[in-house]
Amino acid sequence: MKKINHIGIAVPEMEAAIAQYQALGFAYHGRETVADQKVNTAFFEIGESHIELLEPTEPDSPVGKFLAKRGPGIHHIAVEVEDLDAALARLKAAGTHLINEEPVIGAGGRRVAFVHPKAAGGVLMELMEACG
Amino acid sequence: MKKINHIGIAVPEMEAAIAQYQALGFAYHGRETVADQKVNTAFFEIGESHIELLEPTEPDSPVGKFLAKRGPGIHHIAVEVEDLDAALARLKAAGTHLINEEPVIGAGGRRVAFVHPKAAGGVLMELMEACG
Repeated sequence: MKKINHIGIAVPEMEAAIAQYQALGFAYHGRETVADQKVNTAFFEIGESHIELLEPTEPDSPVGKFLAKRGPGIHHIAVEVEDLDAALARLKAAGTHLINEEPVIGAGGRRVAFVHPKAAGGVLMELMEACG
Repeated sequence: MKKINHIGIAVPEMEAAIAQYQALGFAYHGRETVADQKVNTAFFEIGESHIELLEPTEPDSPVGKFLAKRGPGIHHIAVEVEDLDAALARLKAAGTHLINEEPVIGAGGRRVAFVHPKAAGGVLMELMEACG
């Protein structure tokens, strides 16, 4: 485990949420729409990590369903690992409940895999392969 | 905003949660009971941040009530600011909804203040004064 890459926060209305995080003093870094996930994202840098606001573009999407069920708040955390294949092999051998047993391609073309909340104290955890 | 100091995760049973985080590959760093908050804590290091598992020692406690209402998962995030007094003055002037308008003493004797989830996209956010 190298570092926390980001904390993903589900919000119903992006402009209001961006204004809140700017008011709190976070440095706005940019935004991106991930059509595949039906989500608009906005990034704020903090140290070696960032905060990622997630606004669904449709109710019938992963973040839309999360908002309907739980309301606004933290949706997932993403941690970087040195070697994702090795980490997944070790977790599978240990019987850890994974959502992705093999890496999938996430934002920015990075290889990622999600661990089930049941295996991480109720937290949806994204493992990302570290860059370089 | 300097860095994410920690992510606090509410868990019903500490030993099982420690075993899960060790299985995921997080480096165990130690534990502490905060009698004041009726909570047992365990720490795992990751980069410049840490994961803090929180197990209530009584149902009638902040983390106990959170678990009863929401189930296991992320309870709060803590971010470090250079100057807590200046940050609070700025936030109060902007009308930000704060839980602590003045600093309180948190774990390890650090000066902290909580921002209300309504002002941070549904996230309970702890502002901590940075060390040194």
